[in-house]
Amino acid sequence: MFESVCVVGAGRVGRAAAARLGERLPTRVTGRELACDGADLVLLCVPDREIAAVAAGIPAGPWVAHTSGAASVVALAPHERRFAVHPLQTFQPGLGPGQFDGAYGAVTGESREARRAGFELAWLLGLEPFELADACRPLYHAAATVAAAFLVTLHDAASELMEAAGAPPEALEPLMRRTIENGFRPTGPFVRGDRGTVEAHLEAIREARPELEPLYLALAGSTERALAR
Amino acid sequence: MFESVCVVGAGRVGRAAAARLGERLPTRVTGRELACDGADLVLLCVPDREIAAVAAGIPAGPWVAHTSGAASVVALAPHERRFAVHPLQTFQPGLGPGQFDGAYGAVTGESREARRAGFELAWLLGLEPFELADACRPLYHAAATVAAAFLVTLHDAASELMEAAGAPPEALEPLMRRTIENGFRPTGPFVRGDRGTVEAHLEAIREARPELEPLYLALAGSTERALAR
Repeated sequence: MFESVCVVGAGRVGRAAAARLGERLPTRVTGRELACDGADLVLLCVPDREIAAVAAGIPAGPWVAHTSGAASVVALAPHERRFAVHPLQTFQPGLGPGQFDGAYGAVTGESREARRAGFELAWLLGLEPFELADACRPLYHAAATVAAAFLVTLHDAASELMEAAGAPPEALEPLMRRTIENGFRPTGPFVRGDRGTVEAHLEAIREARPELEPLYLALAGSTERALAR
Repeated sequence: MFESVCVVGAGRVGRAAAARLGERLPTRVTGRELACDGADLVLLCVPDREIAAVAAGIPAGPWVAHTSGAASVVALAPHERRFAVHPLQTFQPGLGPGQFDGAYGAVTGESREARRAGFELAWLLGLEPFELADACRPLYHAAATVAAAFLVTLHDAASELMEAAGAPPEALEPLMRRTIENGFRPTGPFVRGDRGTVEAHLEAIREARPELEPLYLALAGSTERALAR
């Protein structure tokens, strides 16, 4: 349904999207929305706080979409043919369009036609699309942040404890990969009801890295609540 | 240096260890330490709280070792030829000895000879060994728990938020895998300094899943501290 697309923004997502779309249909990349004349779709890959101003500068006519996770499609006003596709993935510079492969895409559109357009873009990008209500976008994006940004935080904390114990932090990676491969099945002292080991952890953390105790306690509390359900 | 081994305990680690060692040297598996006569090494794959009692029941003579992460090697008294090798991995029933491949092993021994014996067992199991001081074992095991048990907790929390947003929790897995593959590089609104998005997350969580707010706040605080370093 799109015969040409103009990607605004040359950040990580913008470059990867332009490379993928360029494999499939005429695609322009521009840092300036005014260079998008004639495209069927103008895709904004810009920071959330810039979406509204950039959208407002685009002459009426084409579909206009953004790739933000948390922002509403209403930010694309005054355009009415609008939608959002958020690739649920973390991107690195230079890794190219293969970064979309295997990832899901959250599609929000306020009409059947807008959702159809969103799904079409998701397929073109190589994403596995699912529908997401506009009002649920902040909650959905919180989930993505917990899963990705906080996974980095968790690894940082575990690495600090490893270093404090004189152990190599890189030894954590096979453990973390396998935890995912095993389908996130509960593991460790909590599921075994081994309070003695948990107390030993807390004592050791208090002595070596007291600043990590609140994080350990918050995660331990959530773990116990999850296991009790 | 070992010509025969006797594995005590037929849990997940015990079965996988016996299967791996059985590929390489004569190996017996027993639930009872008294059936270990004549083995060069008796390897205890039993719950932490049972190590001391089981070790005490083993006649003097062979090397005695355990596979616990947090327990001291002193739990193996009165044996003096003793060490510990903890496979830094999560095990599932029935997945076999391949579960050791690619994982690291924490070796604790109080003498050069004990460390040599521990490294030898780690190599036989297929682990990549590193040395760990006995006094640092609880801190090291806390790191392992943060990396694995709390990774499950993180995924549970993110899945709950996805479900509350009407989005498929399975969409999180490619994101989490890529976060690891990308070397745990910081990602998300914190590294972009996007306070507005963080506020939107908190508002959405308070409304939909208020019980997850303390966990989000603890992780957000640690994330900000890590980025400020």
